[in-house]
Amino acid sequence: MNPYESLESTFKRLSALNNAQGILQWDQATMMPAGAAEPRSEVLAELSLMRHEILTDPSLADRIEKAESEALGPWQHANLAEIKRHHLHSTTIPGDLVEQLVLAESDCHATWLEAKPANDFKRLAPKLEALFALKREEANIKSEFMECSPYEALLDQYDPGRRTPQVDSLFADLSEFLPGAIEEIVEHQAKSGPVIEPQGPFGIQQQQVLSEQVMEVLDFPFSRGRLDTAAHPFSGGASGDIRITTRYEEDDFMKSLMAVIHEVGHALYEDGLPVEWRTQPVGESRGMTLHESQSLLLEMQAARSEEFIRFLTPRLRQIFAGQGDAWEPDNIVRLYRRVKPGLIRVYADEVTYPLHVIIRYQLETAIINDDIPVAELPGAWNELMDRYLGVCPETDTDGVMQDVHWSAGLFGYFPTYSLGALTAAQLFSKAKADDPRLLPGLSEGNFKPLFAWLDDNIRSKACLYSADELIERASGSSLGADAFKSHIRARYLA
Amino acid sequence: MNPYESLESTFKRLSALNNAQGILQWDQATMMPAGAAEPRSEVLAELSLMRHEILTDPSLADRIEKAESEALGPWQHANLAEIKRHHLHSTTIPGDLVEQLVLAESDCHATWLEAKPANDFKRLAPKLEALFALKREEANIKSEFMECSPYEALLDQYDPGRRTPQVDSLFADLSEFLPGAIEEIVEHQAKSGPVIEPQGPFGIQQQQVLSEQVMEVLDFPFSRGRLDTAAHPFSGGASGDIRITTRYEEDDFMKSLMAVIHEVGHALYEDGLPVEWRTQPVGESRGMTLHESQSLLLEMQAARSEEFIRFLTPRLRQIFAGQGDAWEPDNIVRLYRRVKPGLIRVYADEVTYPLHVIIRYQLETAIINDDIPVAELPGAWNELMDRYLGVCPETDTDGVMQDVHWSAGLFGYFPTYSLGALTAAQLFSKAKADDPRLLPGLSEGNFKPLFAWLDDNIRSKACLYSADELIERASGSSLGADAFKSHIRARYLA
Repeated sequence: MNPYESLESTFKRLSALNNAQGILQWDQATMMPAGAAEPRSEVLAELSLMRHEILTDPSLADRIEKAESEALGPWQHANLAEIKRHHLHSTTIPGDLVEQLVLAESDCHATWLEAKPANDFKRLAPKLEALFALKREEANIKSEFMECSPYEALLDQYDPGRRTPQVDSLFADLSEFLPGAIEEIVEHQAKSGPVIEPQGPFGIQQQQVLSEQVMEVLDFPFSRGRLDTAAHPFSGGASGDIRITTRYEEDDFMKSLMAVIHEVGHALYEDGLPVEWRTQPVGESRGMTLHESQSLLLEMQAARSEEFIRFLTPRLRQIFAGQGDAWEPDNIVRLYRRVKPGLIRVYADEVTYPLHVIIRYQLETAIINDDIPVAELPGAWNELMDRYLGVCPETDTDGVMQDVHWSAGLFGYFPTYSLGALTAAQLFSKAKADDPRLLPGLSEGNFKPLFAWLDDNIRSKACLYSADELIERASGSSLGADAFKSHIRARYLA
Repeated sequence: MNPYESLESTFKRLSALNNAQGILQWDQATMMPAGAAEPRSEVLAELSLMRHEILTDPSLADRIEKAESEALGPWQHANLAEIKRHHLHSTTIPGDLVEQLVLAESDCHATWLEAKPANDFKRLAPKLEALFALKREEANIKSEFMECSPYEALLDQYDPGRRTPQVDSLFADLSEFLPGAIEEIVEHQAKSGPVIEPQGPFGIQQQQVLSEQVMEVLDFPFSRGRLDTAAHPFSGGASGDIRITTRYEEDDFMKSLMAVIHEVGHALYEDGLPVEWRTQPVGESRGMTLHESQSLLLEMQAARSEEFIRFLTPRLRQIFAGQGDAWEPDNIVRLYRRVKPGLIRVYADEVTYPLHVIIRYQLETAIINDDIPVAELPGAWNELMDRYLGVCPETDTDGVMQDVHWSAGLFGYFPTYSLGALTAAQLFSKAKADDPRLLPGLSEGNFKPLFAWLDDNIRSKACLYSADELIERASGSSLGADAFKSHIRARYLA
């Protein structure tokens, strides 16, 4: 076995461990009896340790170096680059810092679980301080190896190659455009007819039927996947075994429906990755911006199109025995597109959502650059909410403590939500232009033209190119905010 | 870390891989979409390879040797003995033979799946020949290392320490006793009132309710376990996470009910193993004879007792809205205890069952000793069936090809079914004598006295003693056939 082949074999083993963990984690959230939590954590921790040992095996650096002088095809070349990246992210941080981080994250997360409902930021603050100090240490060490800024070193874990000047410029564009657009849209929507809420309760069983029907329409391959119920919707499982979850609320069928469509977007991306590279890093999805683009393209672009809603409405009416004006397509369209600045990110519509992300991005870059003391975070949060969205939380529960991310040590994750939204708009716009059957297809519940385009341009490419190169090859232009802004204008201000 | 501690740490890792495989295999049989079969096999194969590499790590023999001169407590001492046994079973066979065996087993099993329904033994024969030759090779190599006969070397994998002179003598006892006893019982049962079959269909949902109710009665800890549906009933899962399955047939509720009780017996054994030894070999169950004793003790001894059936009958009647004589306790007792020689082992009653096992034991020892050509197996099978049970299969489908074991390379497994039945009778008899509240308890659905006895005497002991020592300590006498024979006489001939 030459060095490159031996690397493929090492990463095949890592992939087996990843896939085992994927199923164990899915099981933990859906099937596992509550009392098995502790032994399950121990098993997952041991598998993680095995992965870490494989990635930090001293022979790996040597084999990578040797493989770099081999003659490799383009996929192998890209695979080697990914192998190098995984190795780098695993080896730069000393073992004792890794351990301290795991402990601090778990401690901070546990405190957050109690401090958030109690609106007790003071209790959380010292835990955040300790965790942030360690994250800064991690970011600083990595940034030296990676020749980038500390924040970029964290961002790179979720969105390989992403750098802040580009994010700053895209977010500046959005933060200039959105507040005014929101004002206009709210005014515009106030003038149009009132939105009538369909009245529940909407039976869980009927909602399940709706989920399955919509998944059939979305060509979800049930022979290689499942739908289950969990506390939070997610897409997981293993290679060739895509599993999504949702949760049902009796007074609102929309939430679960849109969660299902969102997660199907994630799952179909995984399902469309090249089978022949299934066990290798190059065969994985191309980071969180791309992943989020695939879920938002389905949820926000396609599923909220007039075409699809007109296809969907009679089916909703039938499943829930809906009668009257509330179930007319025009009303459902308005229902799905209400824009209103609010306090909570996860309930936000697609127009206000990026401002939530921008606020978090500004604060988390300041945290990593050590530009803001923890004690000042709640005030800074409230000020930014007021500035960008014109609303101000009355509690830290609904303010700076609302998200789990920082308490779990996740820095650099937030921007990918909105970069994903920009990417989704840009890809959908190009896909419609490339195939005029695409949009009419949606009005018949036919996603095949859209999915053929996504298969060709995104899913089948895995990690062959960088995220930005992939977006540019697929859409014909580099990642920008124009497509998203046009989409907002066309949908909400036309 | 001293050598013994480093062994514990190595086997903790093995346990994590075992547990991961346990959940992945459970998932494969219950939840996994069919199309994920191939990638799942790849993941399981890679995890098996990792286990094999850990067990054959050259440093292991050295660490074991060093640990043997350490001062160890009784549990650690027993743990070291188990570690040595696992190491021995993994290292004696050369890698290329392991690989040949895996291939031959999978090839033979695949052929069996088609040859059995087609009643085509000729097609299966060459695959059996190839596989048997490899099994003989495996048995011969192991027997040298283990200083036992080739067949014993295979038996040892399922029932550590078990040797054939004891099995021969127990089975000789049974094969002398049973044919005459069966004749008497059949005559006796013909004279007593006719058995009335309750008429179905018995709804799947009602059968599920019955399963859950019975599991509640059996104190099944749903906080640490699950019940699901699979093609074949089994007990699996992971440490601290016991998962059983059953299958439902609409024309017969008894099959599923008894399968559930049987699997609960297996599962409660696992659940009662000492938590502090959860990740170590000494904390595992003490082989298949003990395991089968725990399932049969519940299914055959306790659940078919008059006491329990009288407790159960009103519940059956309620769940299935049963009316008339068929649902009277006396009839249900007779229904549960019908004895009739038949062709198929898995449908056999507890009286005829050991004869099925004895036939297989005689043939498989002959196969491993190379005393019988494959071509003669069907004839020898039919002759033995006629001799011991007085019935003769008309096809090899219902004859020599009925079981998967030999086509899957499982030799030495069959005897543990009946050794388990003997053990169950012996343990139950002693438990009843030790605690006079035990049997009356069953008539109120109270299994606590029985389970307290099993916890103290069996479950909590794990692998601290050998199987025979454990049985002797628990029951006060060495493993024999007397308790079983007394049980048969008392239940069927009183």
